[in-house]
Amino acid sequence: MSKFTFYTNPMSRGQIARWALHEVGAGYDTVLVDWQAKPEAFLAANPMGKVPTIVHHADDGDHVVTECAAICLYLAEVFPEAGLGPQDHERAAYLRWTFFAAGPVEQAVTARSLGFDPKEPRQQGMAGFGSYDRTVDALAGHLAQNAYVCGDRFTMADVYVGSHVDWGVGFKSLPERPEFTAYLDRVRARPAYGEAKAIDMKLIAEMQS
Amino acid sequence: MSKFTFYTNPMSRGQIARWALHEVGAGYDTVLVDWQAKPEAFLAANPMGKVPTIVHHADDGDHVVTECAAICLYLAEVFPEAGLGPQDHERAAYLRWTFFAAGPVEQAVTARSLGFDPKEPRQQGMAGFGSYDRTVDALAGHLAQNAYVCGDRFTMADVYVGSHVDWGVGFKSLPERPEFTAYLDRVRARPAYGEAKAIDMKLIAEMQS
Repeated sequence: MSKFTFYTNPMSRGQIARWALHEVGAGYDTVLVDWQAKPEAFLAANPMGKVPTIVHHADDGDHVVTECAAICLYLAEVFPEAGLGPQDHERAAYLRWTFFAAGPVEQAVTARSLGFDPKEPRQQGMAGFGSYDRTVDALAGHLAQNAYVCGDRFTMADVYVGSHVDWGVGFKSLPERPEFTAYLDRVRARPAYGEAKAIDMKLIAEMQS
Repeated sequence: MSKFTFYTNPMSRGQIARWALHEVGAGYDTVLVDWQAKPEAFLAANPMGKVPTIVHHADDGDHVVTECAAICLYLAEVFPEAGLGPQDHERAAYLRWTFFAAGPVEQAVTARSLGFDPKEPRQQGMAGFGSYDRTVDALAGHLAQNAYVCGDRFTMADVYVGSHVDWGVGFKSLPERPEFTAYLDRVRARPAYGEAKAIDMKLIAEMQS
Protein backbone atom coordinates (compact mmCIF):
# COMPACT_ATOMS: atom_id res chain seq x y z
CA MET A 1 0.00 0.00 0.00
CA SER A 2 1.23 3.49 -0.80
CA LYS A 3 1.78 6.07 1.92
CA PHE A 4 -1.30 8.00 0.79
CA THR A 5 -4.84 7.10 -0.16
CA PHE A 6 -6.31 9.76 -2.42
CA TYR A 7 -10.11 10.00 -2.64
CA THR A 8 -11.04 12.04 -5.65
CA ASN A 9 -13.17 12.53 -8.67
CA PRO A 10 -11.40 13.72 -11.82
CA MET A 11 -14.09 16.35 -12.39
CA SER A 12 -13.49 18.12 -9.10
CA ARG A 13 -11.03 20.19 -7.12
CA GLY A 14 -9.30 16.86 -6.62
CA GLN A 15 -7.21 17.97 -9.59
CA ILE A 16 -5.53 20.49 -7.28
CA ALA A 17 -4.62 17.83 -4.74
CA ARG A 18 -3.27 15.53 -7.45
CA TRP A 19 -1.02 18.30 -8.71
CA ALA A 20 0.26 18.77 -5.14
CA LEU A 21 0.87 15.03 -4.73
CA HIS A 22 2.95 15.03 -7.92
CA GLU A 23 4.87 18.16 -6.90
CA VAL A 24 6.19 16.41 -3.79
CA GLY A 25 6.55 13.02 -5.45
CA ALA A 26 4.23 11.27 -2.98
CA GLY A 27 3.25 7.66 -3.64
CA TYR A 28 -0.53 7.35 -3.59
CA ASP A 29 -3.39 4.99 -4.37
CA THR A 30 -6.34 6.65 -6.05
CA VAL A 31 -9.89 5.78 -5.03
CA LEU A 32 -12.41 7.29 -7.43
CA VAL A 33 -15.51 8.48 -5.63
CA ASP A 34 -18.81 8.15 -7.41
CA TRP A 35 -21.18 10.93 -6.24
CA GLN A 36 -24.02 8.42 -6.10
CA ALA A 37 -22.29 5.66 -4.14
CA LYS A 38 -19.61 6.98 -1.83
CA PRO A 39 -17.34 4.29 -0.30
CA GLU A 40 -17.77 3.69 3.43
CA ALA A 41 -14.08 4.13 4.19
CA PHE A 42 -14.28 7.52 2.54
CA LEU A 43 -17.29 8.68 4.56
CA ALA A 44 -15.59 7.45 7.73
CA ALA A 45 -12.57 9.63 6.92
CA ASN A 46 -14.63 12.64 5.87
CA PRO A 47 -18.26 12.75 7.02
CA MET A 48 -18.79 15.78 4.74
CA GLY A 49 -18.26 13.34 1.87
CA LYS A 50 -16.24 15.88 -0.05
CA VAL A 51 -13.38 15.19 -2.42
CA PRO A 52 -10.49 15.59 -2.41
CA THR A 53 -9.64 13.86 0.85
CA ILE A 54 -6.28 12.27 1.52
CA VAL A 55 -5.37 9.74 4.18
CA HIS A 56 -1.71 9.70 5.14
CA HIS A 57 -0.68 6.28 6.38
CA ALA A 58 2.09 7.54 8.64
CA ASP A 59 4.23 5.59 11.06
CA ASP A 60 2.18 6.90 13.99
CA GLY A 61 -1.20 6.15 12.42
CA ASP A 62 -3.57 7.38 9.75
CA HIS A 63 -4.05 11.11 9.31
CA VAL A 64 -6.95 12.51 7.32
CA VAL A 65 -6.64 15.82 5.52
CA THR A 66 -9.53 17.55 3.80
CA GLU A 67 -9.79 21.04 2.22
CA CYS A 68 -7.62 21.52 -0.87
CA ALA A 69 -5.45 24.22 0.63
CA ALA A 70 -4.80 22.16 3.76
CA ILE A 71 -3.79 19.20 1.60
CA CYS A 72 -1.31 21.36 -0.32
CA LEU A 73 0.31 22.84 2.79
CA TYR A 74 0.33 19.49 4.54
CA LEU A 75 2.21 17.81 1.70
CA ALA A 76 4.76 20.63 1.56
CA GLU A 77 5.46 20.14 5.27
CA VAL A 78 5.56 16.35 5.18
CA PHE A 79 7.97 16.41 2.21
CA PRO A 80 10.46 19.14 3.16
CA GLU A 81 12.93 17.70 0.64
CA ALA A 82 10.66 18.93 -2.17
CA GLY A 83 11.56 22.47 -1.10
CA LEU A 84 8.05 23.81 -1.65
CA GLY A 85 7.38 25.10 1.85
CA PRO A 86 8.28 28.70 2.66
CA GLN A 87 11.66 30.00 3.69
CA ASP A 88 11.50 32.47 6.58
CA HIS A 89 11.20 35.56 4.39
CA GLU A 90 8.50 33.88 2.24
CA ARG A 91 6.28 32.75 5.11
CA ALA A 92 4.08 35.85 5.29
CA ALA A 93 3.17 35.85 1.59
CA TYR A 94 2.82 32.05 1.56
CA LEU A 95 0.19 32.01 4.29
CA ARG A 96 -1.44 35.31 3.41
CA TRP A 97 -2.23 34.49 -0.21
CA THR A 98 -3.12 30.87 0.40
CA PHE A 99 -5.75 31.96 2.89
CA PHE A 100 -6.74 34.84 0.63
CA ALA A 101 -7.52 32.35 -2.12
CA ALA A 102 -9.21 29.87 0.24
CA GLY A 103 -11.31 32.61 1.82
CA PRO A 104 -12.10 35.81 -0.09
CA VAL A 105 -11.41 34.54 -3.63
CA GLU A 106 -13.32 31.28 -3.17
CA GLN A 107 -16.18 33.12 -1.51
CA ALA A 108 -16.36 35.95 -4.04
CA VAL A 109 -16.28 33.59 -7.01
CA THR A 110 -18.83 31.17 -5.51
CA ALA A 111 -21.19 33.95 -4.47
CA ARG A 112 -21.05 35.43 -7.94
CA SER A 113 -21.49 32.12 -9.75
CA LEU A 114 -24.57 31.51 -7.61
CA GLY A 115 -25.90 34.90 -8.58
CA PHE A 116 -25.08 36.66 -5.35
CA ASP A 117 -22.70 39.62 -5.09
CA PRO A 118 -22.93 41.98 -2.11
CA LYS A 119 -23.62 45.49 -3.39
CA GLU A 120 -24.46 47.50 -0.27
CA PRO A 121 -21.70 48.69 2.08
CA ARG A 122 -23.41 46.93 4.98
CA GLN A 123 -23.32 43.61 3.13
CA GLN A 124 -19.74 44.19 1.99
CA GLY A 125 -18.74 44.77 5.60
CA MET A 126 -20.32 41.49 6.65
CA ALA A 127 -18.85 39.46 3.83
CA GLY A 128 -15.17 38.84 4.50
CA PHE A 129 -14.35 39.31 0.84
CA GLY A 130 -15.86 42.80 0.61
CA SER A 131 -16.69 42.65 -3.04
CA TYR A 132 -15.77 40.60 -6.07
CA ASP A 133 -13.97 43.47 -7.80
CA ARG A 134 -11.84 44.42 -4.80
CA THR A 135 -10.88 40.81 -4.25
CA VAL A 136 -9.85 40.28 -7.87
CA ASP A 137 -7.92 43.56 -7.90
CA ALA A 138 -5.97 42.61 -4.79
CA LEU A 139 -4.91 39.25 -6.22
CA ALA A 140 -4.06 40.69 -9.65
CA GLY A 141 -2.11 43.49 -7.99
CA HIS A 142 0.07 41.02 -6.13
CA LEU A 143 0.71 38.91 -9.24
CA ALA A 144 1.54 42.02 -11.27
CA GLN A 145 4.47 42.63 -8.95
CA ASN A 146 5.56 39.07 -8.25
CA ALA A 147 6.30 36.18 -10.60
CA TYR A 148 5.02 33.76 -7.96
CA VAL A 149 3.07 34.06 -4.71
CA CYS A 150 6.26 34.29 -2.65
CA GLY A 151 8.25 36.35 -5.15
CA ASP A 152 10.80 34.79 -7.48
CA ARG A 153 10.32 31.16 -6.57
CA PHE A 154 7.54 28.62 -7.12
CA THR A 155 6.18 27.24 -3.84
CA MET A 156 3.24 25.10 -2.83
CA ALA A 157 1.20 28.29 -2.44
CA ASP A 158 1.32 28.52 -6.24
CA VAL A 159 -0.30 25.11 -6.61
CA TYR A 160 -3.27 26.38 -4.67
CA VAL A 161 -3.43 30.00 -5.81
CA GLY A 162 -2.45 28.98 -9.34
CA SER A 163 -5.28 26.45 -9.44
CA HIS A 164 -7.77 29.13 -8.43
CA VAL A 165 -6.55 31.36 -11.23
CA ASP A 166 -6.44 28.41 -13.66
CA TRP A 167 -10.00 27.33 -12.92
CA GLY A 168 -11.27 30.88 -12.60
CA VAL A 169 -9.96 31.99 -15.98
CA GLY A 170 -10.96 28.65 -17.53
CA PHE A 171 -14.55 28.83 -16.29
CA LYS A 172 -14.65 32.61 -16.77
CA SER A 173 -15.39 33.15 -13.10
CA LEU A 174 -12.23 35.28 -13.03
CA PRO A 175 -11.47 37.85 -15.73
CA GLU A 176 -8.76 37.10 -18.29
CA ARG A 177 -6.45 39.85 -17.04
CA PRO A 178 -2.86 39.96 -18.32
CA GLU A 179 -1.51 39.48 -14.78
CA PHE A 180 -3.45 36.24 -14.58
CA THR A 181 -2.55 34.86 -18.00
CA ALA A 182 1.16 35.62 -17.53
CA TYR A 183 1.08 33.89 -14.14
CA LEU A 184 -0.72 30.91 -15.66
CA ASP A 185 1.97 30.54 -18.32
CA ARG A 186 4.48 30.16 -15.51
CA VAL A 187 2.61 27.74 -13.26
CA ARG A 188 1.24 25.57 -16.07
CA ALA A 189 4.83 24.94 -17.15
CA ARG A 190 5.44 22.84 -14.04
CA PRO A 191 6.05 19.19 -15.00
CA ALA A 192 3.88 18.03 -12.10
CA TYR A 193 0.99 20.14 -13.40
CA GLY A 194 1.20 18.37 -16.76
CA GLU A 195 1.46 14.91 -15.23
CA ALA A 196 -1.49 15.39 -12.91
CA LYS A 197 -3.65 17.03 -15.58
CA ALA A 198 -2.96 14.19 -18.02
CA ILE A 199 -4.16 11.60 -15.51
CA ASP A 200 -7.37 13.46 -14.74
CA MET A 201 -8.10 14.23 -18.39
CA LYS A 202 -7.67 10.54 -19.23
CA LEU A 203 -10.02 9.54 -16.39
CA ILE A 204 -12.61 12.06 -17.55
CA ALA A 205 -12.38 10.74 -21.10
CA GLU A 206 -12.89 7.17 -19.83
CA MET A 207 -15.91 8.22 -17.78
CA GLN A 208 -17.47 9.91 -20.79
CA SER A 209 -16.76 7.14 -23.30
CA MET B 1 9.31 50.27 17.94
CA SER B 2 7.85 46.84 18.66
CA LYS B 3 8.45 43.90 16.35
CA PHE B 4 4.84 44.05 15.12
CA THR B 5 2.49 46.77 13.98
CA PHE B 6 -1.09 45.69 14.46
CA TYR B 7 -3.77 47.45 12.41
CA THR B 8 -7.13 46.76 13.91
CA ASN B 9 -10.50 47.99 15.00
CA PRO B 10 -11.78 46.64 18.32
CA MET B 11 -15.17 45.89 16.77
CA SER B 12 -13.79 43.51 14.18
CA ARG B 13 -12.13 40.16 13.63
CA GLY B 14 -9.06 41.99 14.83
CA GLN B 15 -9.99 40.51 18.20
CA ILE B 16 -8.87 37.14 16.87
CA ALA B 17 -5.45 38.45 15.85
CA ARG B 18 -4.99 40.20 19.20
CA TRP B 19 -5.70 36.94 21.01
CA ALA B 20 -3.07 35.25 18.81
CA LEU B 21 -0.53 38.01 19.52
CA HIS B 22 -1.04 37.52 23.25
CA GLU B 23 -0.82 33.73 23.00
CA VAL B 24 2.71 33.97 21.60
CA GLY B 25 3.72 36.94 23.74
CA ALA B 26 4.54 39.15 20.74
CA GLY B 27 5.36 42.80 21.33
CA TYR B 28 3.14 44.99 19.19
CA ASP B 29 2.06 48.57 18.57
CA THR B 30 -1.63 48.97 17.90
CA VAL B 31 -2.87 51.33 15.19
CA LEU B 32 -6.62 51.76 15.37
CA VAL B 33 -8.18 52.01 11.94
CA ASP B 34 -11.15 54.29 11.50
CA TRP B 35 -13.39 52.94 8.70
CA GLN B 36 -13.86 56.49 7.39
CA ALA B 37 -10.21 57.58 7.34
CA LYS B 38 -7.84 54.69 6.80
CA PRO B 39 -4.15 55.51 7.39
CA GLU B 40 -1.95 55.57 4.27
CA ALA B 41 0.62 53.17 5.73
CA PHE B 42 -2.20 50.72 6.31
CA LEU B 43 -3.54 50.92 2.76
CA ALA B 44 -0.01 50.53 1.43
CA ALA B 45 0.35 47.31 3.43
CA ASN B 46 -3.11 46.00 2.54
CA PRO B 47 -4.82 47.55 -0.49
CA MET B 48 -8.00 45.68 0.48
CA GLY B 49 -8.10 47.99 3.50
CA LYS B 50 -9.20 45.15 5.74
CA VAL B 51 -8.39 44.73 9.41
CA PRO B 52 -6.73 42.92 11.00
CA THR B 53 -3.43 43.35 9.21
CA ILE B 54 -0.08 42.86 10.90
CA VAL B 55 3.32 44.05 9.76
CA HIS B 56 6.22 42.03 11.11
CA HIS B 57 9.35 44.18 11.32
CA ALA B 58 11.77 41.30 10.90
CA ASP B 59 15.53 41.42 10.56
CA ASP B 60 15.23 40.84 6.81
CA GLY B 61 12.57 43.49 6.24
CA ASP B 62 8.89 44.12 6.79
CA HIS B 63 6.42 41.29 6.19
CA VAL B 64 2.71 41.95 5.84
CA VAL B 65 0.19 39.33 6.87
CA THR B 66 -3.53 39.66 6.26
CA GLU B 67 -6.38 37.15 6.75
CA CYS B 68 -7.02 36.18 10.37
CA ALA B 69 -6.15 32.54 9.96
CA ALA B 70 -2.88 33.37 8.21
CA ILE B 71 -1.97 35.74 11.04
CA CYS B 72 -2.59 33.02 13.61
CA LEU B 73 -0.52 30.38 11.80
CA TYR B 74 2.21 32.88 11.02
CA LEU B 75 2.62 33.84 14.66
CA ALA B 76 2.73 30.20 15.75
CA GLU B 77 5.57 29.59 13.29
CA VAL B 78 7.53 32.74 14.10
CA PHE B 79 7.32 32.00 17.84
CA PRO B 80 8.04 28.26 18.04
CA GLU B 81 8.91 28.68 21.74
CA ALA B 82 5.20 29.28 22.44
CA GLY B 83 4.59 25.66 21.48
CA LEU B 84 1.36 26.42 19.62
CA GLY B 85 2.29 25.04 16.23
CA PRO B 86 1.50 21.41 15.46
CA GLN B 87 3.60 18.42 16.36
CA ASP B 88 3.90 15.90 13.53
CA HIS B 89 0.88 13.85 14.54
CA GLU B 90 -1.22 17.01 14.98
CA ARG B 91 -0.41 18.57 11.62
CA ALA B 92 -3.29 17.05 9.64
CA ALA B 93 -6.00 18.19 12.07
CA TYR B 94 -4.30 21.55 12.58
CA LEU B 95 -4.39 22.45 8.89
CA ARG B 96 -7.62 20.66 8.04
CA TRP B 97 -9.80 22.40 10.62
CA THR B 98 -8.17 25.79 10.29
CA PHE B 99 -8.98 25.77 6.58
CA PHE B 100 -12.38 24.24 7.29
CA ALA B 101 -13.18 27.24 9.48
CA ALA B 102 -11.65 29.76 7.07
CA GLY B 103 -13.47 28.24 4.11
CA PRO B 104 -16.70 26.29 4.60
CA VAL B 105 -17.65 27.63 8.04
CA GLU B 106 -16.95 31.26 7.17
CA GLN B 107 -18.76 30.88 3.87
CA ALA B 108 -21.78 29.04 5.26
CA VAL B 109 -22.24 31.52 8.11
CA THR B 110 -21.78 34.57 5.86
CA ALA B 111 -24.11 33.24 3.19
CA ARG B 112 -26.77 32.53 5.76
CA SER B 113 -26.42 35.89 7.54
CA LEU B 114 -26.82 37.56 4.16
CA GLY B 115 -29.97 35.56 3.56
CA PHE B 116 -28.48 33.07 1.15
CA ASP B 117 -28.30 29.32 1.80
CA PRO B 118 -27.94 26.91 -1.11
CA LYS B 119 -30.92 24.55 -1.14
CA GLU B 120 -30.69 22.73 -4.43
CA PRO B 121 -28.17 19.89 -4.94
CA ARG B 122 -26.72 21.74 -7.93
CA GLN B 123 -26.02 24.81 -5.80
CA GLN B 124 -24.67 22.69 -2.94
CA GLY B 125 -22.27 21.05 -5.35
CA MET B 126 -20.98 24.42 -6.51
CA ALA B 127 -20.63 25.89 -3.04
CA GLY B 128 -17.59 24.42 -1.33
CA PHE B 129 -19.41 24.29 1.97
CA GLY B 130 -22.28 22.15 0.66
CA SER B 131 -24.85 23.39 3.10
CA TYR B 132 -24.95 25.20 6.40
CA ASP B 133 -26.24 22.17 8.31
CA ARG B 134 -23.64 19.75 6.98
CA THR B 135 -20.87 22.21 7.74
CA VAL B 136 -22.04 22.78 11.32
CA ASP B 137 -22.48 19.04 11.86
CA ALA B 138 -18.96 18.28 10.67
CA LEU B 139 -17.39 20.83 13.03
CA ALA B 140 -19.56 19.80 15.99
CA GLY B 141 -18.78 16.15 15.30
CA HIS B 142 -15.06 16.79 15.52
CA LEU B 143 -15.37 18.79 18.75
CA ALA B 144 -17.59 16.12 20.29
CA GLN B 145 -14.70 13.68 20.01
CA ASN B 146 -11.78 16.01 20.73
CA ALA B 147 -11.20 18.50 23.53
CA TYR B 148 -9.27 20.71 21.12
CA VAL B 149 -8.80 20.87 17.35
CA CYS B 150 -5.69 18.67 17.51
CA GLY B 151 -6.90 16.38 20.29
CA ASP B 152 -5.84 16.83 23.90
CA ARG B 153 -3.77 19.96 23.55
CA PHE B 154 -4.56 23.61 22.84
CA THR B 155 -2.84 24.87 19.68
CA MET B 156 -3.03 27.99 17.55
CA ALA B 157 -5.74 26.28 15.50
CA ASP B 158 -7.98 26.71 18.56
CA VAL B 159 -7.47 30.46 18.53
CA TYR B 160 -8.91 30.57 15.04
CA VAL B 161 -11.52 27.80 15.21
CA GLY B 162 -12.39 28.80 18.77
CA SER B 163 -12.99 32.38 17.67
CA HIS B 164 -15.35 31.22 14.95
CA VAL B 165 -17.32 29.22 17.48
CA ASP B 166 -17.16 32.07 20.02
CA TRP B 167 -18.45 34.67 17.56
CA GLY B 168 -20.89 32.27 15.95
CA VAL B 169 -22.57 31.27 19.19
CA GLY B 170 -22.41 34.88 20.45
CA PHE B 171 -24.07 36.32 17.34
CA LYS B 172 -26.33 33.28 17.00
CA SER B 173 -24.97 32.54 13.55
CA LEU B 174 -24.00 29.12 14.94
CA PRO B 175 -26.38 27.06 17.07
CA GLU B 176 -25.74 26.76 20.81
CA ARG B 177 -24.93 23.05 20.64
CA PRO B 178 -23.45 21.36 23.73
CA GLU B 179 -20.28 20.45 21.77
CA PHE B 180 -19.74 24.14 21.07
CA THR B 181 -20.45 25.44 24.57
CA ALA B 182 -18.21 22.82 26.21
CA TYR B 183 -15.42 23.72 23.77
CA LEU B 184 -15.92 27.42 24.47
CA ASP B 185 -15.56 26.83 28.20
CA ARG B 186 -12.13 25.38 27.48
CA VAL B 187 -10.80 27.96 25.04
CA ARG B 188 -12.19 30.99 26.89
CA ALA B 189 -10.20 29.89 29.95
CA ARG B 190 -6.94 30.78 28.17
CA PRO B 191 -5.27 33.72 29.97
CA ALA B 192 -4.37 35.28 26.59
CA TYR B 193 -8.04 35.20 25.59
CA GLY B 194 -8.95 37.18 28.70
CA GLU B 195 -6.13 39.70 28.26
CA ALA B 196 -6.94 40.38 24.62
CA LYS B 197 -10.68 40.58 25.19
CA ALA B 198 -10.20 43.05 28.06
CA ILE B 199 -8.20 45.39 25.82
CA ASP B 200 -10.77 45.32 23.02
CA MET B 201 -13.71 45.71 25.38
CA LYS B 202 -12.04 48.76 26.96
CA LEU B 203 -11.40 50.27 23.51
CA ILE B 204 -15.00 49.67 22.49
CA ALA B 205 -16.24 51.30 25.70
CA GLU B 206 -14.03 54.33 25.03
CA MET B 207 -15.29 54.64 21.46
CA GLN B 208 -18.86 54.55 22.64
CA SER B 209 -18.47 56.98 25.55
